[in-house]
Amino acid sequence: MPIRNPVFAPPFNIVRASHVELGVRDLARARAFYVDCLGLLLSDETADALYLRGVEERNHHSLVLRLSRAAEAQALGFKLGSEADLDRAAFWFARANLPTSFPDLPHQGRTLRTADIFGTPLDLCAQMEQSESMLQKYAAHQGARIQRIDHLNCFTPDVQASYDFYSALGFRLTEYTETDGDDAKLWAVWLQRKGNVHDLAFTNGLGPRLHHVGLWTAGVHDIIHICDVMATCGYLANMERGPGRHGISNAFFLYVRDPDGHRVELFTSDYLTVDPDHAPIRWSLTDPRRQTLWGHSAPESWFREGSQFSGVAPREPALAAQPVVAM
Amino acid sequence: MPIRNPVFAPPFNIVRASHVELGVRDLARARAFYVDCLGLLLSDETADALYLRGVEERNHHSLVLRLSRAAEAQALGFKLGSEADLDRAAFWFARANLPTSFPDLPHQGRTLRTADIFGTPLDLCAQMEQSESMLQKYAAHQGARIQRIDHLNCFTPDVQASYDFYSALGFRLTEYTETDGDDAKLWAVWLQRKGNVHDLAFTNGLGPRLHHVGLWTAGVHDIIHICDVMATCGYLANMERGPGRHGISNAFFLYVRDPDGHRVELFTSDYLTVDPDHAPIRWSLTDPRRQTLWGHSAPESWFREGSQFSGVAPREPALAAQPVVAM
Amino acid sequence: MPIRNPVFAPPFNIVRASHVELGVRDLARARAFYVDCLGLLLSDETADALYLRGVEERNHHSLVLRLSRAAEAQALGFKLGSEADLDRAAFWFARANLPTSFPDLPHQGRTLRTADIFGTPLDLCAQMEQSESMLQKYAAHQGARIQRIDHLNCFTPDVQASYDFYSALGFRLTEYTETDGDDAKLWAVWLQRKGNVHDLAFTNGLGPRLHHVGLWTAGVHDIIHICDVMATCGYLANMERGPGRHGISNAFFLYVRDPDGHRVELFTSDYLTVDPDHAPIRWSLTDPRRQTLWGHSAPESWFREGSQFSGVAPREPALAAQPVVAM
Amino acid sequence: MPIRNPVFAPPFNIVRASHVELGVRDLARARAFYVDCLGLLLSDETADALYLRGVEERNHHSLVLRLSRAAEAQALGFKLGSEADLDRAAFWFARANLPTSFPDLPHQGRTLRTADIFGTPLDLCAQMEQSESMLQKYAAHQGARIQRIDHLNCFTPDVQASYDFYSALGFRLTEYTETDGDDAKLWAVWLQRKGNVHDLAFTNGLGPRLHHVGLWTAGVHDIIHICDVMATCGYLANMERGPGRHGISNAFFLYVRDPDGHRVELFTSDYLTVDPDHAPIRWSLTDPRRQTLWGHSAPESWFREGSQFSGVAPREPALAAQPVVAM
Repeated sequence: MPIRNPVFAPPFNIVRASHVELGVRDLARARAFYVDCLGLLLSDETADALYLRGVEERNHHSLVLRLSRAAEAQALGFKLGSEADLDRAAFWFARANLPTSFPDLPHQGRTLRTADIFGTPLDLCAQMEQSESMLQKYAAHQGARIQRIDHLNCFTPDVQASYDFYSALGFRLTEYTETDGDDAKLWAVWLQRKGNVHDLAFTNGLGPRLHHVGLWTAGVHDIIHICDVMATCGYLANMERGPGRHGISNAFFLYVRDPDGHRVELFTSDYLTVDPDHAPIRWSLTDPRRQTLWGHSAPESWFREGSQFSGVAPREPALAAQPVVAM
Repeated sequence: MPIRNPVFAPPFNIVRASHVELGVRDLARARAFYVDCLGLLLSDETADALYLRGVEERNHHSLVLRLSRAAEAQALGFKLGSEADLDRAAFWFARANLPTSFPDLPHQGRTLRTADIFGTPLDLCAQMEQSESMLQKYAAHQGARIQRIDHLNCFTPDVQASYDFYSALGFRLTEYTETDGDDAKLWAVWLQRKGNVHDLAFTNGLGPRLHHVGLWTAGVHDIIHICDVMATCGYLANMERGPGRHGISNAFFLYVRDPDGHRVELFTSDYLTVDPDHAPIRWSLTDPRRQTLWGHSAPESWFREGSQFSGVAPREPALAAQPVVAM
Repeated sequence: MPIRNPVFAPPFNIVRASHVELGVRDLARARAFYVDCLGLLLSDETADALYLRGVEERNHHSLVLRLSRAAEAQALGFKLGSEADLDRAAFWFARANLPTSFPDLPHQGRTLRTADIFGTPLDLCAQMEQSESMLQKYAAHQGARIQRIDHLNCFTPDVQASYDFYSALGFRLTEYTETDGDDAKLWAVWLQRKGNVHDLAFTNGLGPRLHHVGLWTAGVHDIIHICDVMATCGYLANMERGPGRHGISNAFFLYVRDPDGHRVELFTSDYLTVDPDHAPIRWSLTDPRRQTLWGHSAPESWFREGSQFSGVAPREPALAAQPVVAM
Repeated sequence: MPIRNPVFAPPFNIVRASHVELGVRDLARARAFYVDCLGLLLSDETADALYLRGVEERNHHSLVLRLSRAAEAQALGFKLGSEADLDRAAFWFARANLPTSFPDLPHQGRTLRTADIFGTPLDLCAQMEQSESMLQKYAAHQGARIQRIDHLNCFTPDVQASYDFYSALGFRLTEYTETDGDDAKLWAVWLQRKGNVHDLAFTNGLGPRLHHVGLWTAGVHDIIHICDVMATCGYLANMERGPGRHGISNAFFLYVRDPDGHRVELFTSDYLTVDPDHAPIRWSLTDPRRQTLWGHSAPESWFREGSQFSGVAPREPALAAQPVVAM
């Protein structure tokens, strides 16, 4: 039985997935994609980085694009409940023999850089420089009118181990895919802290690697519009999958690839999960509707490709089952 | 019985309401409103005029804003079926002792300038310089993503007379408001040539004056978005009425006033009227739902204010009945 | 040069594609699909037929489903401008040595049953019994909230011949696909009478066969919703293609197959084409964006399958070029 | 300075506003309104009560309509984090000399019935009977396609006192209205537990009374549709205010009155508030945009009318300032 009881009193309080840093090889090209096309707001621009946020976000940035020789993911960022939680986190990771340091990061409060058991780099902080909310500056809403970061989705070589690790930190399971039969194995898990379907998800595969960054839009229309825009302004090849409706999470989605190959999901319409008696939903690995209600298959790239984390060699997963591809 | 049979073989073929010219006192201010806020495309800009069009329009312009000392409407523009129709129109208006001339207008084919029986200036042409359709250049769609001009709506001092005049030219009645009782009088008429609810409408009032120019949007979302934009970028006072749903025409609407006071309707979701046996819908002047299904009252300005036509003194209407204001 | 000038004065006036009759093998099953799921309104139900219409339609029916031993299309229906046009049509078809009869059809005015040069059965009438418009009975809008019939799309063994035939009857070309090179051949044509992109379209293929019936919805949201409904109430396998955006016509579309295999397109967001100087848009057969802007391929069935017309044997097309399938 | 620091470690964990019980005088009439028109799902129906929920809700009910001689609100319902939280709550309320009892309520786990300092009846429970989620049974989504309960909004005779009381229980302030000047007084507060703008709100006025129950819809389209439905199926007079956009919370809203006069808000599009450094937004009582961005005034009834709580006499507020009504 691979499913655990939720941990309601974790060793420290992670509030949500709040930001991510990606390495890109050409800042102008990245800016054209994320700002001019997708419509993220530019909070700051330096010689080697772009700091971006969605229209409702007051945190200075939810996406940092750093000039890099390789198109790698640098770190997953999470917001903690307080500075005291940050101290508790540092203690917890140190005692778990995981790396801890406090790099000086612009526009963020004190930040713990650490890693999970597979080496996935994590940045934890409780405070970030606050920017103006642009939610009611509607004239500044462009492209997909992205509201905020929603979640981070990763490949892991061992879903059960990743699930166990993050469960202990208070992440709650909302949906999961497992193999059928007596010796069921977890294939994928969706884990939340902020009260919707996920802040963090893991799928079985060569990992750790970042599968995608999920960005929230206000509705279906914004996603349909960005399809029309991308298809007609030179980004057709960047549209990897969708639009469509996931069975899992009920999300209306579009997956796009940025000019460096990092995957972004534009995402809306999941549901509330804060109740203590909210039970996780199980999907069989052989049920094609978990991937898409409407029966469209995902391309091979969607199952195989992801962004490596800087300096972290991914491993092959132990579990070799193949998901049933829709249709 | 004030309603006439449709004229299926008119003396010449008016295809649709296609453009309108408005006098504005400040071109930069007008451009900020129509282009930067509402999102109309700028086809041409000269020292004394702006030529605008919607995203699907290939005609060079559907809205001409001409620098003027007075905020007056200059002319209502209609597209004819052919150059031969234009000749027939010139003959017909001349024989009706209405003025005819062929001014040289930029970007338009041969254009007949004439007037209706109340002096409303009309520009008729069969050809216009063709511009690139921007319908599938989605990145250029901004603001209300206006698709095209839809209709022209005027005050007239005598609705029956205006209806009779345009009916003879083949305009077909789709909806009308009349007073109750044995001696019913027309209060307002909606007349079409292109096959939806209207190209031209008349309401009883001090006239002739232009009540509004109707611009078509692709859906409700575009109108809700422009409400949010206008309310938060300095145009709150320009939002005169709506958003709402008209009983008449079933249109989802927003009425705005431009910086010179000209009224524009953003409009979507009416219906097809091409059938020969399509019967007009009658509304009683005492039925508040014709103005709005949802029960919102229109402000006094909406009933009283309009743009005078240049050089044409409006007259008081003969009919003094008052519409029932919703709620 | 295969493109002809429009015929603005045709021998009789066809107003629009107005109805279609399909043979179905199980009326209850058809009713569950069209009424309970898609949301068409039931105008009448007899022992051997269902008469359906959209929410804005006042014509008694736009879709007739007749109990039949074979899942065949029975006739394409068109509305004429007047009873005199009907007489002119009967004369014209007779002189062209095409069959003419006046069968007695319930709820329709006098109806000419004839055929085009390939035997496609055509029903022409100028009047139909009028039903209540349900456009403002919003509580009755269900499923895809279908507004009205929009168009009919057929396979033909000779696109040029079909185009020539219907052009002579006043159908105007709005978009077309042709092969490249000096000796360009027409591959597909979109032809209109009512002023949007099409009433009737033809694609090269084993024909004559009905490819699909196009039904108009008020917006994108209605099509997304019916995807969710069909996918979760037993009609997943009936979703053949989409949702997506056509390059041709700019339509937002979903293609579904009814329980007898007849194909229906739910369709919205094309554009106005009434201008006399409105030029048709040419697409190369090698341009994948004509089928879909977003790069999704259509399934093989979409290119190959269609409904035979009752009693009409289809022929292989002369033109053997293959369309470039998207992606 | 009336604003307090958030209490991150409250005496017990209230997860969210989860349900409400209203007294209605005619169950059939209430069912027609809530189920047939608004589209709430019927979880259970007894001789004296209806149990309703939204399409994503797994809790058996979020709205209980109980047959009653008076149209009164019976209790505000909140979900707690655990059974242990429920024990802690009982202890806390008892020590505060507030009433505590554990009535036996159908379909709910152990429930503490208590009251706040003004006598507002509160029902607290940690568990509820779980029903099937209908989120992916799209064919069952009707009317406004209501997803879930969102919040409860009340009049209070002393906003500062209500704010102080609920702040101590961990409710966090997200937005507030106060009078201007040196001695600023709180006029209204929006308080959250689940991470969006509010679970509970208070406005200065004759209280305690329930102002409205907020129900969440997936998007703007669902609210526009229910306007059309209500206006055309006999509920026009029940549409009290909107649709519109609040400045406060950025919500797109429609306020309706049920047949007993209880007020319901259909509501969508607010924002995420989980961050520990998320600062509340201050609005001046003299700023009309807090009520509506678009400049529409609310009717007098919206400011004056509310549902009394059963057996609780409301008092006049101490603060007599008048809100500036929009426009």
